[in-house]
Amino acid sequence: MVSFDFVKRVRYGETDMMGYLYYGNYPQLYEIGRVETMRNLGLLYKDLEEKYRVMMPVVHVDARYILPAKYDEALTIRTILHELPSRLIVFTNEIYNEQSVLIHKAEVKLMFVDMDSLKKISCPEYMLEKLRPLF
Amino acid sequence: MVSFDFVKRVRYGETDMMGYLYYGNYPQLYEIGRVETMRNLGLLYKDLEEKYRVMMPVVHVDARYILPAKYDEALTIRTILHELPSRLIVFTNEIYNEQSVLIHKAEVKLMFVDMDSLKKISCPEYMLEKLRPLF
Amino acid sequence: MVSFDFVKRVRYGETDMMGYLYYGNYPQLYEIGRVETMRNLGLLYKDLEEKYRVMMPVVHVDARYILPAKYDEALTIRTILHELPSRLIVFTNEIYNEQSVLIHKAEVKLMFVDMDSLKKISCPEYMLEKLRPLF
Amino acid sequence: MVSFDFVKRVRYGETDMMGYLYYGNYPQLYEIGRVETMRNLGLLYKDLEEKYRVMMPVVHVDARYILPAKYDEALTIRTILHELPSRLIVFTNEIYNEQSVLIHKAEVKLMFVDMDSLKKISCPEYMLEKLRPLF
Repeated sequence: MVSFDFVKRVRYGETDMMGYLYYGNYPQLYEIGRVETMRNLGLLYKDLEEKYRVMMPVVHVDARYILPAKYDEALTIRTILHELPSRLIVFTNEIYNEQSVLIHKAEVKLMFVDMDSLKKISCPEYMLEKLRPLF
Repeated sequence: MVSFDFVKRVRYGETDMMGYLYYGNYPQLYEIGRVETMRNLGLLYKDLEEKYRVMMPVVHVDARYILPAKYDEALTIRTILHELPSRLIVFTNEIYNEQSVLIHKAEVKLMFVDMDSLKKISCPEYMLEKLRPLF
Repeated sequence: MVSFDFVKRVRYGETDMMGYLYYGNYPQLYEIGRVETMRNLGLLYKDLEEKYRVMMPVVHVDARYILPAKYDEALTIRTILHELPSRLIVFTNEIYNEQSVLIHKAEVKLMFVDMDSLKKISCPEYMLEKLRPLF
Repeated sequence: MVSFDFVKRVRYGETDMMGYLYYGNYPQLYEIGRVETMRNLGLLYKDLEEKYRVMMPVVHVDARYILPAKYDEALTIRTILHELPSRLIVFTNEIYNEQSVLIHKAEVKLMFVDMDSLKKISCPEYMLEKLRPLF
């Protein structure tokens, strides 16, 4: 299993007139969570696209909004990989506020696409090499 | 049943370097879809907050990304209400591209909150009055 | 001279906790204004990139925030071209609220870049053809 | 004089199909720069609004786009205050890429507004106290 925490503050431009983080800005938090989790494992999403010509489009998001996030709060984005990816990679994101209360939970599924053929492929060896020892 | 279509173009600032509408921008489309559907029924979300002191935070989103949306495409956001709301209101959003192909589908659940007490309430009579004749 | 008006509503996700359109969302309005102005003249920005391999990066923005824009307001984005473009194209954007009061004014300068050589070029003939008769 | 550097990565959702940071996302960088500069001086923008009931709307932005910012680059946002604020506060933002090259420069003017009367006021003593020793 992989689990990694990354802290991100709620910015003014991310709030809405309700006074909280706009519900549509959470997917950006998942993106930050998974990219930083990959970086922490020595995997750069940028390299995946540039060097390996593989992109990872999102195919499914299931998100539960439990409590609102306030302006200027330093949120902890926890990103969890429960399983080694194959055709899909499934990230679980848990978001905690400054009082360590779980305020949001999401499951995000992505696929792997060869950028030249635009065909679906399996998780590239570049990623599996780093991930296998952790499962 | 309620079903309403609203057309919205994909803007440059909404694309990402993959060349498509960024996955995190779809919740804005759901918002536009439900607000315009309400407006079409004679209901202003703005009035709900200002006059009736009720806000509608999102509690759950389930979204399937089927095909990418391209820059400058005029997307049709279809918003469907299958049931009369009670404690929750559930909107189904279907997004179609210019070739009328379904490219995205989401179910968005919102609750009703009294802005003064911050307590959950049932769907306000202001909305039910307009919705009842349609179910 | 070219002048074109396009109406765009302020969306919830575009407001901030001050209760108004976030100051950082105005550049999206300028983008919408100039793309729709071009479309009105029979020019598609999309074609410029895809067919003519020319992109138009912004080089300078000068923006005056006069009055705030409220949620759900239908803003009028007026886009004005005072001069035929050469090395640069300069758009003036005036934004009016529902009471026709000028709430924002910006001058946006863009250059033309050949997407293959990444060199600066002059305004392509594709655009000048449509613009010349108007000046 | 005050000068403070804050590092912020370019996220996927902040890029556009040109492959660079979207021009409309720079104002968010200025916001991050000035809020973190204030925090570094012991000033919380959040407190300014909540405790002192003062908000700081932007009145003018002058921005020069020199070079594009790439995906995943760790940008350095330098925020400079050349003068003690009075009716207005003027922040200069310089943005540097990972090669320490200046890629963007902006001057952002904000005013101070009493949130209860909605009248313009001068820079509150809460801020001046912290700023005076630095000029």
